Amino acid sequence: VVRRPIITLTTDFGLDDHFVGTLKGVILDIVPEAEIVDISHAAQAFDILDGALSFAPAYKYFPNATTHLVVVDPGVGSSRRPIVASTDRYHFVAPDNGVLSVVYNEEQRIQVRHLTAPRYFLQPVSNTFHARDIFAPVAAHLAKGVDPGKLGPEISDFIRLDLARPTRDSQNVWRGMVLKVDHFGNLITNIASQDVPELFRGNPPAFRIVFGSREIAQLRFAYSQGNPGEVFAIAGSMGYLEIAANQASAAELLSAGKGAEFTFSLLGTLSQTNSGLVERKAPAKIIRV
Amino acid sequence: VVRRPIITLTTDFGLDDHFVGTLKGVILDIVPEAEIVDISHAAQAFDILDGALSFAPAYKYFPNATTHLVVVDPGVGSSRRPIVASTDRYHFVAPDNGVLSVVYNEEQRIQVRHLTAPRYFLQPVSNTFHARDIFAPVAAHLAKGVDPGKLGPEISDFIRLDLARPTRDSQNVWRGMVLKVDHFGNLITNIASQDVPELFRGNPPAFRIVFGSREIAQLRFAYSQGNPGEVFAIAGSMGYLEIAANQASAAELLSAGKGAEFTFSLLGTLSQTNSGLVERKAPAKIIRV
Amino acid sequence: VVRRPIITLTTDFGLDDHFVGTLKGVILDIVPEAEIVDISHAAQAFDILDGALSFAPAYKYFPNATTHLVVVDPGVGSSRRPIVASTDRYHFVAPDNGVLSVVYNEEQRIQVRHLTAPRYFLQPVSNTFHARDIFAPVAAHLAKGVDPGKLGPEISDFIRLDLARPTRDSQNVWRGMVLKVDHFGNLITNIASQDVPELFRGNPPAFRIVFGSREIAQLRFAYSQGNPGEVFAIAGSMGYLEIAANQASAAELLSAGKGAEFTFSLLGTLSQTNSGLVERKAPAKIIRV
Repeated sequence: VVRRPIITLTTDFGLDDHFVGTLKGVILDIVPEAEIVDISHAAQAFDILDGALSFAPAYKYFPNATTHLVVVDPGVGSSRRPIVASTDRYHFVAPDNGVLSVVYNEEQRIQVRHLTAPRYFLQPVSNTFHARDIFAPVAAHLAKGVDPGKLGPEISDFIRLDLARPTRDSQNVWRGMVLKVDHFGNLITNIASQDVPELFRGNPPAFRIVFGSREIAQLRFAYSQGNPGEVFAIAGSMGYLEIAANQASAAELLSAGKGAEFTFSLLGTLSQTNSGLVERKAPAKIIRV
Repeated sequence: VVRRPIITLTTDFGLDDHFVGTLKGVILDIVPEAEIVDISHAAQAFDILDGALSFAPAYKYFPNATTHLVVVDPGVGSSRRPIVASTDRYHFVAPDNGVLSVVYNEEQRIQVRHLTAPRYFLQPVSNTFHARDIFAPVAAHLAKGVDPGKLGPEISDFIRLDLARPTRDSQNVWRGMVLKVDHFGNLITNIASQDVPELFRGNPPAFRIVFGSREIAQLRFAYSQGNPGEVFAIAGSMGYLEIAANQASAAELLSAGKGAEFTFSLLGTLSQTNSGLVERKAPAKIIRV
Repeated sequence: VVRRPIITLTTDFGLDDHFVGTLKGVILDIVPEAEIVDISHAAQAFDILDGALSFAPAYKYFPNATTHLVVVDPGVGSSRRPIVASTDRYHFVAPDNGVLSVVYNEEQRIQVRHLTAPRYFLQPVSNTFHARDIFAPVAAHLAKGVDPGKLGPEISDFIRLDLARPTRDSQNVWRGMVLKVDHFGNLITNIASQDVPELFRGNPPAFRIVFGSREIAQLRFAYSQGNPGEVFAIAGSMGYLEIAANQASAAELLSAGKGAEFTFSLLGTLSQTNSGLVERKAPAKIIRV
């Protein structure tokens, strides 16, 4: 079996307009055998950090040689550069506004190029839809096998976003933030496994999370372990500590959402042991946001 | 032409997060030539019956050898078993919580296996995202041709859901329920063709549906036959009696939604004949919910 | 590489039900090697003009020989005809209700046929879901290479929709309308490049748009040029004049939406020059709505 070129799409375009369909038409016209996979088109409009977080938990699961297109692009038509970042496994095609910051943090060997070769663009290039005119055709040409070296010169001054990391107030106290709320109402926090590794292992220590007037002291190992109405902490599949509830929305129960702040304090070693807690696998730990 | 392996996805994950994209990455990494088709990701969160109803009207239209992944899984990480149900035509990969009940009711020869062979899982397996770590990789291996016998032992005590069937109060009276409201505001009821076959044929008898204070006595054979503002009954494409309106939302007109109850009474033989009413085709009758 | 048959889908079905998944099953059962691409399933329910506008900006980007299925079909089950419109590049399969009007206006050589050959339908044909029973199977057979001549007789009395064109009140004054609001809150107007070509070129003249009590006199060449809170005009990627804002929703700022009316007056030649304004490319100019 010949491996088809795979291109993933992550944008803030939504699915209600023609935008995503148009990108797919442009890609298939250049590389008709491509398999195009939507990761998410629900990044918050114009929100570059949210775009970065939208594809980060997914991209490492794709086969080698996948081309990832990531477009959250409030600066379209301005002087911000279009770029391709290449690693041993993937290409990432995106505007140079920091939306690839997670990739820069995570990947060891990475080469970033400024896309300057108009022969790989759709002509004439508009000022309002570079996803159609620049990013999609370049992704298609990469998927078709074009050497990144032909697309433009290497650059080193690409933009890194200041990712929303927790602040450590003392040895045992962090101030954290909710990065996003998922479809089930789980609050995805910015406390990652490398911040408090002991929390993500078997036999985790006691802790207290203070969320406004609410305290959370319970760690669960599966959503279904929660009692009715209980809000608890859990090591989530994206590699972050989540605040969750069993078959209910923690966001609703806490009236909290994206950007909400909290403090996290380690208290000691939990007596509870639960061998069911597994290490999150490598791909889930990728984000050092 | 070599037939590509086809995998369909039905979940309650929504499309706003990375979840569905991650599943597709996992699948394509195992079987890059797969064609992955979304049936629906809008099953109501944690609602197993809604998950069952989400893929049921669609699955029989897919080619032989399609693998259907169905994940509505409030018990993820608990002791509920992951399973594969195999028929002559399809594999169904799902949690053992009843989400496949429609398949059990509908299919003649079916073999259900407990998925116990970790070599077909993504390692290590998390407690919070079995769709990624168990169901998607198993579906991919099945699509690639792995024999179900290698995935685990056959079981017979799999869980069947008590599907929401209408109650027959007397020879001519049923108490029914709204199973779901579709995108157009049609109320999909649980009155199926086998319940009142005469209603689904040409020359149907007179009837009365009582929905709170509203009565519906008109059967239409096409949505466009409805008068403005009229709410009528129609034999819907999912094989159920629907309450509908012409270019309007019956749900809004009746202020009724999922779970709403009604009585249905047969009154005799309608004088109206309309040769336009066709028997629903076999695939549309599949659900004996 | 053999070019796979490509089929695009545009409907008003939404993505929450099984409808779109069912269409894909039907298509893949007939032509398993097909690549199926969603353009949009968010056309406003029953709104034929919105359906026409939903696929129009996208369809010309697809490779030659693509089959476009377009179903917004309030008359399903009535006497309205199912048709296929064929051009040198594409087939369009749709109900004969005007949803293809943009294609009729735009394409030079076009042949329209009434679909009358039941052997290409799914049998029996329902009265409520022709997308499944007629349009999807016909699109699949076309993609498989069936000659349109076998599908039914050519017709010339197909329905053209009276597309929402601006009214010219005087040499320099037009009354226009908002065709739709996109995901970012941009108001897509019906003022197209052929209406006021000078506005879409470098060195455009001064103008005034009156939107209720609001006046807009600024033309921007990229969204990012807008000042905070400013509402401006811009030559949009769909080939229409748009009313937009920088990282904000013009629809919210103006409290205006689909159907809102305005006047557009040319005042003379703008002193401003901006070589960044490019001609929209051919595909973006297609709609003479």
